[in-house]
Amino acid sequence: MRVLITGIEGFVGSHLTELVLQHKGVELVGTSLQGNLSPSLEHLRSSIEVRTLDTTDANAVQSVISTIRPDRIIHLAALTYVPASMKSPLPTFQANLLGGIHILEAVRELQQTSGHSSHLMFVSTGEAYGNVDPAQMPITEECLLRPQNPYASSKAAVDLIAQQYQRSFGLQITVVRPFNHVGAGQASIFVCSNFARQFAEIAAGRRDPVLHVGNLESSRDFTDVHDVVRAYWQLFERRSEETVFNVCSGTTHSISEVLALLMEISALKVSLEQQTERMRAYDVTVVVGDCQRLKRATGWKPERSLKQSLTDLYAYWRENLDL
Amino acid sequence: MRVLITGIEGFVGSHLTELVLQHKGVELVGTSLQGNLSPSLEHLRSSIEVRTLDTTDANAVQSVISTIRPDRIIHLAALTYVPASMKSPLPTFQANLLGGIHILEAVRELQQTSGHSSHLMFVSTGEAYGNVDPAQMPITEECLLRPQNPYASSKAAVDLIAQQYQRSFGLQITVVRPFNHVGAGQASIFVCSNFARQFAEIAAGRRDPVLHVGNLESSRDFTDVHDVVRAYWQLFERRSEETVFNVCSGTTHSISEVLALLMEISALKVSLEQQTERMRAYDVTVVVGDCQRLKRATGWKPERSLKQSLTDLYAYWRENLDL
Repeated sequence: MRVLITGIEGFVGSHLTELVLQHKGVELVGTSLQGNLSPSLEHLRSSIEVRTLDTTDANAVQSVISTIRPDRIIHLAALTYVPASMKSPLPTFQANLLGGIHILEAVRELQQTSGHSSHLMFVSTGEAYGNVDPAQMPITEECLLRPQNPYASSKAAVDLIAQQYQRSFGLQITVVRPFNHVGAGQASIFVCSNFARQFAEIAAGRRDPVLHVGNLESSRDFTDVHDVVRAYWQLFERRSEETVFNVCSGTTHSISEVLALLMEISALKVSLEQQTERMRAYDVTVVVGDCQRLKRATGWKPERSLKQSLTDLYAYWRENLDL
Repeated sequence: MRVLITGIEGFVGSHLTELVLQHKGVELVGTSLQGNLSPSLEHLRSSIEVRTLDTTDANAVQSVISTIRPDRIIHLAALTYVPASMKSPLPTFQANLLGGIHILEAVRELQQTSGHSSHLMFVSTGEAYGNVDPAQMPITEECLLRPQNPYASSKAAVDLIAQQYQRSFGLQITVVRPFNHVGAGQASIFVCSNFARQFAEIAAGRRDPVLHVGNLESSRDFTDVHDVVRAYWQLFERRSEETVFNVCSGTTHSISEVLALLMEISALKVSLEQQTERMRAYDVTVVVGDCQRLKRATGWKPERSLKQSLTDLYAYWRENLDL
């Protein structure tokens, strides 16, 4: 089975690669903007064909997909940093939305011209739902999409378009809407990783025991990245006619709980300094997703607790402060 | 007041122009791909500044909007022919989705750099809802978007993004979702105009009295184009905090009723020939929209009956068969 992962160099791409390569008979091709892999995948490099691909280039996308003729595609390549999308939206729309359409078109053309059908997994986001009324929690896949920033609206838009391609052209499409995920290798622009890194810096004596924090009252539905990529892979073999699936834990944890867990894990005493620039005005307050559809379709359930995820993250930063 | 209409050369643009120029103190700028106007607007040419604009060119869009500094923008420019979007989706996505994002970005930049706030009306479509369960009719603005073809999904996608720009950047945005509209000047790719044209051809002795038809059981929510453009204009001065508005009549008429009315109007006896290529596989069966939000916000109500609209259309084709 030929598997293509776009954006293989990223946090989720790296964890997904480890999972996919545990399966026999998989030929894995990964693409990234620079043709690079995460350093954490060096031990697997000989098992992966890595290609350079800029998804905003329609011809390049078409050429890669028609050459590889993948059986499964997981389209992860995206710009995901919300503040950058707020400051300058166009690059995020070009990468996520136009790039996504190019992938859909290439899969459609391959099916039309050669009859080869690729099962395409589109990675959308739980942020596509936006600020949901607490009365409507947990958020199901039937909830209206009301994205609050250009990152989220680029994903919401291509999420709708991917569903339309499934309906109009009979492509095999799965749209996943992951909520917050946590694990080793996550960029420190995301809250759990940011805090874990600060704790690691304090432990290493590289900063005073003062943690910079934002809004501690926000509450999120966190899933360990191992559980997330396992859900993706299981969805390829689901028992379900549905196209769209939330990937989340169905529980919610406040940012204060994240902090308390990291204090316990690190055994460090720290004081807090709240910084207004970390209080995103467009931030939503409480989020919890409904993962019943995913569970019914696959039997999946989350296996790793938030404490385990944060333990991984802290250990990761203890070893990688110089990255 | 400076008003900018993109896609001014089209069917809706022409009717909107007639309406807007009835208001005192309006400076009207229109754009079209070729810098042209509909022949029906020749008598108003001296009152309109017409510019060439391809909305897929981000710099050109930015330049037009920053030069004109419009108070109101009605963004009509779009590719609207569904079968073309099914055959080759990319041009429709580029024009409608990328073009729409360029308009949003230009308005955002103008506001950010000069403080000038344009009220931007985004013309989406009732087709964005897709195949709605009859139990959910009439369709309100809270209905999920499940577009069934690339035209509809390009509009649904940019509809979501326009709403997000209103929420994230505080732009003055109105999103309208017009259902089927009817009136003189409509291209004969749309069902009412197509039938009216066939009747006019029969009346002129240019074809046998045999009407080519598709699915007569389909039923649609038709609004006269005069009522549609009046709704658009009234929405600029609405009493409402809402952003998205259906523009529709709240009633539904079958294609057979359209036929019966045209037989009455033309006083012609015709036989019917059903053609399978006119039975679009992706066609939805019954559509009726809910226009309560629009009515509450503006006091608008439809003033012209389907019979009046079809009378206009038939008269139009009687005079313009050589177009």
